Amino acid sequence: MHVMIIGAAGMVGRKFAMRLAQTGRLGGTEVARMTLVDVVEPALPGGNVPAVAAVTDLSAPGASEKLVSTRPDVIFHLAAIVSGEAETDFDKGYRINLDGTRFLFEAIRQEGIKAPYRPRVVFSSSIAVFGAPFPEAIGDEFFTTPATSYGTQKAIGELLLADYSRRGFLDGIGIRLPTICIRPGKPNKAASGFFSNILREPLVGEEAVLPVAETVRHWFASPRAAIGFLEHAATIELAPLGQRRNLTMPGLSATVGEEIEALRRVAGDKAVRLIRREPNEAIARMVAGWPGRFDARRAEALGFRAETSFDEIVRAHVEDELGGKVG
Amino acid sequence: MHVMIIGAAGMVGRKFAMRLAQTGRLGGTEVARMTLVDVVEPALPGGNVPAVAAVTDLSAPGASEKLVSTRPDVIFHLAAIVSGEAETDFDKGYRINLDGTRFLFEAIRQEGIKAPYRPRVVFSSSIAVFGAPFPEAIGDEFFTTPATSYGTQKAIGELLLADYSRRGFLDGIGIRLPTICIRPGKPNKAASGFFSNILREPLVGEEAVLPVAETVRHWFASPRAAIGFLEHAATIELAPLGQRRNLTMPGLSATVGEEIEALRRVAGDKAVRLIRREPNEAIARMVAGWPGRFDARRAEALGFRAETSFDEIVRAHVEDELGGKVG
Repeated sequence: MHVMIIGAAGMVGRKFAMRLAQTGRLGGTEVARMTLVDVVEPALPGGNVPAVAAVTDLSAPGASEKLVSTRPDVIFHLAAIVSGEAETDFDKGYRINLDGTRFLFEAIRQEGIKAPYRPRVVFSSSIAVFGAPFPEAIGDEFFTTPATSYGTQKAIGELLLADYSRRGFLDGIGIRLPTICIRPGKPNKAASGFFSNILREPLVGEEAVLPVAETVRHWFASPRAAIGFLEHAATIELAPLGQRRNLTMPGLSATVGEEIEALRRVAGDKAVRLIRREPNEAIARMVAGWPGRFDARRAEALGFRAETSFDEIVRAHVEDELGGKVG
Repeated sequence: MHVMIIGAAGMVGRKFAMRLAQTGRLGGTEVARMTLVDVVEPALPGGNVPAVAAVTDLSAPGASEKLVSTRPDVIFHLAAIVSGEAETDFDKGYRINLDGTRFLFEAIRQEGIKAPYRPRVVFSSSIAVFGAPFPEAIGDEFFTTPATSYGTQKAIGELLLADYSRRGFLDGIGIRLPTICIRPGKPNKAASGFFSNILREPLVGEEAVLPVAETVRHWFASPRAAIGFLEHAATIELAPLGQRRNLTMPGLSATVGEEIEALRRVAGDKAVRLIRREPNEAIARMVAGWPGRFDARRAEALGFRAETSFDEIVRAHVEDELGGKVG
């Protein structure tokens, strides 16, 4: 089986490539080779699976056609201009997130016109397809009214994925990822960064800033859960989805206060004291428009699983990123 | 006020242009001129409003820019490849319905970069953005999972309209039209044609074919109501919509049996006897996936109005198309 990961230099793409390289399997099938694609050179994951890196911009003329001509069996499309950048650079967001996605799907269709071809396509969408106001818990049939250009582009990608699947050009599934927490690495400038920062930094004895109230509620899954979603999405039977190919992934609804209590249980009061309150009105306003809870029944019924407590999320980070050590 | 109607050669566009030409006003404002755009030469409506016709394909390079450079105050975007054709000609559907719409919105944004410009844009969407299975009544927050490429393209147009509005590039409203009944003119090959045929033809003493059971339920509004929707959409304050710029229009939920009873009340048993039952499995299957009832509260609260009985729909046709005469 030939697996292609587009967006392989990103956090989730990198972790997923490493996972495939380690296990050598996707579902019950052997991964014979991997192609890792991104706009910057993706790291090769080592392990026993032959892997090649490709530096490509999906939105460049002919780029998708060239990638797809290698006929991967499964394509993970994880590449995107993130929310903040898609908002400040309108053209770039639409070019990469909309045109890039459409060119990819269209290249698959054209490849299938040459000779039968219908790869599984796993598209990473986002809960940013939803916009406030929200019900108490957002159900699987709630409408998509994005509050950002990024969310708009993801919602359009979902519609294209579903139509190209319905027409038989590809076998697609879109998965709306929760906010990934704890994101490994350094603090970044994303408005949502603090959800991870206030756990990740104190776990290694560093200070972190909390810009919102402890009552703020959001929707989370660990990087480990995200990798599990991708793997599951690539291997399950999609017929039960019918034409409704896009799914909100399960997650954990938790408040900032609950995050902090989990940190206390795992790493003690000493860690919690490293969280510095520094209220930021702009961030608080933005976050107020974000969803806090989903009722992701369809995905759960299909076997997708996320963490059920923040303690699990914190422990997953300690195991996967800190070699099991706190302090 | 300069009004542009794109898709002015279509049934709704033609009727709407005639209405503007007759009244000379849109809301409280005088219509100083009209530009009527379509891929075939639109008829000029007469009346006292100066009107010019433009034969243009929105998806052709530079076409939208040229149209928008005349800076209309209100743009009605009614042009589309219809459902059946968008399904058989995949490329053409995406080119006209998706690219054409995006080029139009983008041309408006570019025009606004040259000098401030933010026209009202009324986009005719469709209940085809929804796909079965449906709840008993489809609410305003139900998700869009189109069962056709046409519905997909309309749903994408809605998302673009909302994002371009949110960013302040245009002041858009998308209106999802019910199935228009009674469509004037000759029977056409649309799968939904029979809903109109079984009334229109008997009203002038002609036979019509009914391919489905009388229990089939669907969602209707008259051409007169559709014209009213366009006019209302162009003139109301849109701030109450927030970022949710797309609305299901009110309509009448009725069965084929109820259509026939209305025909009987308006035109007698003689007319009803002209309906010939000729069951068609293919049509019946297709129609089974169409929505039967909406709960269009948001649009109703904003003052959009449709007929409340099929007798009204039949009488509107008799008045507007048959000079008040049945027979």
